[in-house]
Amino acid sequence: MKERVIAVRISPLYPKMRQELPPLSGVRMATAEAGIKYKNRADLLFIVFDEPASVAGVFTRSKCSSTSVDHCRESLSHGIAKGVVVNAGNANAFTGRKGERTTKAIVHAAADILGAKENEIFIASTGVIGEPMDESRILSLLPDMAVRAKEGDWLEAARAIMTTDTFPKVATRRFNCCGEVVIINGIAKGAGMIAPDMATMLSFVVSDAAIASDILQSMLSEAVHGSFNAITVDSDTSTSDTLMMFATGKAKGSLPRLTNKSDPRYSVFSEQLGSLLRDLALQVVCDGEGARHLIEVNVTGATTDDAAKTIAMSIANSPLVKTAIAGEDANWGRVVMAVGKAGVEADRDLLTIWFGEYRLAINGERDPDYNEEEVGAYMKEKNIMIRVDIGLGGGKARVWSCDLTKEYVAINGDYRS
Amino acid sequence: MKERVIAVRISPLYPKMRQELPPLSGVRMATAEAGIKYKNRADLLFIVFDEPASVAGVFTRSKCSSTSVDHCRESLSHGIAKGVVVNAGNANAFTGRKGERTTKAIVHAAADILGAKENEIFIASTGVIGEPMDESRILSLLPDMAVRAKEGDWLEAARAIMTTDTFPKVATRRFNCCGEVVIINGIAKGAGMIAPDMATMLSFVVSDAAIASDILQSMLSEAVHGSFNAITVDSDTSTSDTLMMFATGKAKGSLPRLTNKSDPRYSVFSEQLGSLLRDLALQVVCDGEGARHLIEVNVTGATTDDAAKTIAMSIANSPLVKTAIAGEDANWGRVVMAVGKAGVEADRDLLTIWFGEYRLAINGERDPDYNEEEVGAYMKEKNIMIRVDIGLGGGKARVWSCDLTKEYVAINGDYRS
Repeated sequence: MKERVIAVRISPLYPKMRQELPPLSGVRMATAEAGIKYKNRADLLFIVFDEPASVAGVFTRSKCSSTSVDHCRESLSHGIAKGVVVNAGNANAFTGRKGERTTKAIVHAAADILGAKENEIFIASTGVIGEPMDESRILSLLPDMAVRAKEGDWLEAARAIMTTDTFPKVATRRFNCCGEVVIINGIAKGAGMIAPDMATMLSFVVSDAAIASDILQSMLSEAVHGSFNAITVDSDTSTSDTLMMFATGKAKGSLPRLTNKSDPRYSVFSEQLGSLLRDLALQVVCDGEGARHLIEVNVTGATTDDAAKTIAMSIANSPLVKTAIAGEDANWGRVVMAVGKAGVEADRDLLTIWFGEYRLAINGERDPDYNEEEVGAYMKEKNIMIRVDIGLGGGKARVWSCDLTKEYVAINGDYRS
Repeated sequence: MKERVIAVRISPLYPKMRQELPPLSGVRMATAEAGIKYKNRADLLFIVFDEPASVAGVFTRSKCSSTSVDHCRESLSHGIAKGVVVNAGNANAFTGRKGERTTKAIVHAAADILGAKENEIFIASTGVIGEPMDESRILSLLPDMAVRAKEGDWLEAARAIMTTDTFPKVATRRFNCCGEVVIINGIAKGAGMIAPDMATMLSFVVSDAAIASDILQSMLSEAVHGSFNAITVDSDTSTSDTLMMFATGKAKGSLPRLTNKSDPRYSVFSEQLGSLLRDLALQVVCDGEGARHLIEVNVTGATTDDAAKTIAMSIANSPLVKTAIAGEDANWGRVVMAVGKAGVEADRDLLTIWFGEYRLAINGERDPDYNEEEVGAYMKEKNIMIRVDIGLGGGKARVWSCDLTKEYVAINGDYRS
């Protein structure tokens, strides 16, 4: 497939202040230029844990997941990570038996270099799908990368896994976890697409806290609800989505390993992890293709939290709502439509709808006091909040999306020379 | 809300040959300019059955359906139709108690004029939502319309119910139904949107056959699966979707009324009805906002027909698939993605994918024989067929969609002066 040429400008929604990520004990990283697809930029990342790290992961729900995802999912139960290999430019997805051999070859090489078992090596690939990937260059680069890997330039790592992202995504939290100062660093990529591939969301998070793998998995699975599972750019789910978390246990403190959910550190750590993941997830939405507005959808008053999430996602994924926001139009009629089509309980005559602090509709009709001019000014802001109260119960949810602009269509559909 | 100004050109997918609809005994129609929103064009349609007609209907599944839809749904069980009032320009949806009074006033007036009960009058409104609708002009026009209504100019009727449709949608079938020549005429509108409303699909179908209402309902409910329930423009479901069918029993033949599903006429009539509804439904997709390509998605080999439909709709609604078709790009990787995210059983390594007659992928990888140049030429055609074989069973489904172009975003999201 031929490549398209599109002028790339940095998303207008990129974070103005970039967080400085501190080095984190127990993890070393190196990047390299494998030239898989891109020229003159790093596209390969090798993460090395010199001592076994705890590991947790959540992956795409796609029924056609990639072989990399399959390998990671199967290896999780072993609970130990010694290395992670990530490449950008080719997703090695839908590449048949050949693709499986490529995954195995990379995993085998990395295990060999690090003196690890194959189920202690994790792998992720992002980029073109359906193109066979030549692993030879990766295999020849890994030994040197393992030697020169250091306690890391996280920003460089975030850059190496980008595809059509317009900015690298990093986040960090440093906090006192019941007497011990610990760090969580995370990187993510997402919303990038180059023909003929699809959006792939990858994120790798490392902490120096000492946490058992099963506990780490429990924290990660909970924290993903309000972060990566609460965002949508275009409702399309990749075959390769991967979020992995590692804990090295190398923080300076001397507290024992966290092995129990009733440990008071569990909730302290979980809250910080949730905040960091939400931070990264929002950066992904802010880099959504063609995005000019970040949309936060808050649904309250649904019969259950699940019902609220279904309604919120129906609003966040509606092309008509998303184009209205692109047009800076407070089109609450389309919000009613999206509530109605969600398929869960709702009553037209009980709905209340706000855009920002402006109430536009109440009791099933237009708010008589709503001032179109004020709302019009609000709609020009970069961050738009849509709030809907269903009026039936206590269920609530919050999700994020971005607007649907002509640039989205251009990036994904323009005729390519 | 202010109105946007957009240069409207007729969809490039409009049917080159328009079907001439014959007069149909037992139904009279009149149109008028009520000026609800549009100027200098008919926007009101009154359909009159001088003798009670059988009636059937299917309506939006929205949980926030309009009061017009509610009235029709409740009136169906009575099984008799004497009149139908349809207006374009205001959907009278999400207009609270005031909106309910408007619906009741129109129904009451029409019943009065035609000497009918209120549950023998059906009503549909399409256009802006959330704006109170002034019914006074409609009420003053109806008496004269009832008088001058005649055995109809169906094209004029189809024009009167348009909103942002770029062409009127009509279809007809005339056939021998086991010894009796009968006619089915149908009109539809859809894919039109004007801020702040949403796509509303309306369709009215009349036959001169003699068919009991419960049998008509059974035929309509079956036929809708392969037609109106098998199309999507943007996955957004209106609060007002209405498809109604009437049978006047005035065909020239002398066969008895059809009252039984085992009557051989049932399947003959059903087949023709299915064909007519598919015809109208495809016209709606061809007028999908900004559409430049009609997409037919054929899924075979799924575990069940329902699973096949879920997969087909996942492909047909995927923004990434739809932008790829707009870009004339045979992006089968995005088809794999859409199969994977559908959530029903699929096996990556068993998928086979064709665009038109060109097989692009087989056994989980790119077809080694696929000729990019030939496929590239095919992708420039107006009608694109995507076929996916899941390789698991005998379930199959066929649905239609259109591509997602910058014009769609412009129509629904451009900043309005």
